[in-house]
Amino acid sequence: MKKYAVIVAGGSGSRMGASRPKQFLLLNGKPVLWHTLEAFSAAYNDMQIVLVLPPGFLEEGKQIIQTTSAPSRVKIVAGGATRFHSVKNGLEHAADNAIIFVHDAVRCLITPALIRRCYEQALQKGSAIPAIAVTDSIRMIADGKTRIVDRNALRAVQTPQTFRAEIILSAFKQEYDPRFTDEASVVEAAGADVFLIEGEKENIKITLPADMLLAEQVLKNRSGALSREE
Amino acid sequence: MKKYAVIVAGGSGSRMGASRPKQFLLLNGKPVLWHTLEAFSAAYNDMQIVLVLPPGFLEEGKQIIQTTSAPSRVKIVAGGATRFHSVKNGLEHAADNAIIFVHDAVRCLITPALIRRCYEQALQKGSAIPAIAVTDSIRMIADGKTRIVDRNALRAVQTPQTFRAEIILSAFKQEYDPRFTDEASVVEAAGADVFLIEGEKENIKITLPADMLLAEQVLKNRSGALSREE
Repeated sequence: MKKYAVIVAGGSGSRMGASRPKQFLLLNGKPVLWHTLEAFSAAYNDMQIVLVLPPGFLEEGKQIIQTTSAPSRVKIVAGGATRFHSVKNGLEHAADNAIIFVHDAVRCLITPALIRRCYEQALQKGSAIPAIAVTDSIRMIADGKTRIVDRNALRAVQTPQTFRAEIILSAFKQEYDPRFTDEASVVEAAGADVFLIEGEKENIKITLPADMLLAEQVLKNRSGALSREE
Repeated sequence: MKKYAVIVAGGSGSRMGASRPKQFLLLNGKPVLWHTLEAFSAAYNDMQIVLVLPPGFLEEGKQIIQTTSAPSRVKIVAGGATRFHSVKNGLEHAADNAIIFVHDAVRCLITPALIRRCYEQALQKGSAIPAIAVTDSIRMIADGKTRIVDRNALRAVQTPQTFRAEIILSAFKQEYDPRFTDEASVVEAAGADVFLIEGEKENIKITLPADMLLAEQVLKNRSGALSREE
């Protein structure tokens, strides 16, 4: 089965207080995006990657790709006005009869193990949306007040949101709706059920400086574990 | 105005894969709980602390208190069957005409700055519940399926949940209800509104090994920032 990873790097990075989009910040001397690309290349040696970047950052993306271990498997595409439009641009470069992963570029701690588990479930059930338990108490705001929500009924959704190609490709033929916040919501609106899979606590989205600290520490621990195994 | 911090250490630590409750794990050579106690002592020099520990860990708690900078301001109390009962035990040692903070012992990265902001708001509005935006997409499970929830309407609740004494003391006279998941839910059930305040992203609850890594990194960065200021 063919495999396509659409890696979406859309954010402007304004929440980081950094002047550059956060996928380009350095983590252990390599851009955040580099770590993400390497995880997908490593998961399957026939993984094709479609990297969706904000127009204006395509050249920067090309330079990063040249430093990865499999530059020939990565294609760069310009993003659109919303995440939906960016993913749609990326999906134009994926084929039928495949498993398609859609992943946030800034979730750079993704492991090949989770990518493979998503693949297996999507092959079997049609989709695999990684999600984890919510550990904080959650309140919902309504009418200017807040009320508690039962957190046992909640799951925090991650990526790669993974689908059999025919399911996601047909879902993205719909008209855009502002309620499309992720690919699962697009597929659901097209009438298909989506199936969760257990995600990874460390598969965080880099949005704030504290996330960069955690990511550095996790990478350091992983490389320590690797060298102990050698 | 008097100030009481009820610090609740209830968890068994089973999710950490550790043999000891997580408030006793070492972070930079000191127990998690030690860091929490020091933050509250540092926030106000007239802060009184009521430390609620699982029965069976009182002696261990006493030894940690002796290593803090203000042991005479800390009193130890045994916890009860649920968080509600544990907090209720702690509140018996707080007086009227005070501001009362209820805090998770395992949120050891709490800053004196947030404690002071909670105090100021509780003094003015009656309560201050620290909460932050939810960055992950959230799904809700219902009838074996899941649906997306608008994350802009959600807030992740932290502690210290802070109240004017009369509000929390009278609320805790209610009969126990299993829907009491935190102090805000108890106060709400008693008919009072609760008011959120912006929390801190780093004010995490130590529940998994990855959280210990983040906490170590945050403490390291803070001490680096301090020595650069000297």
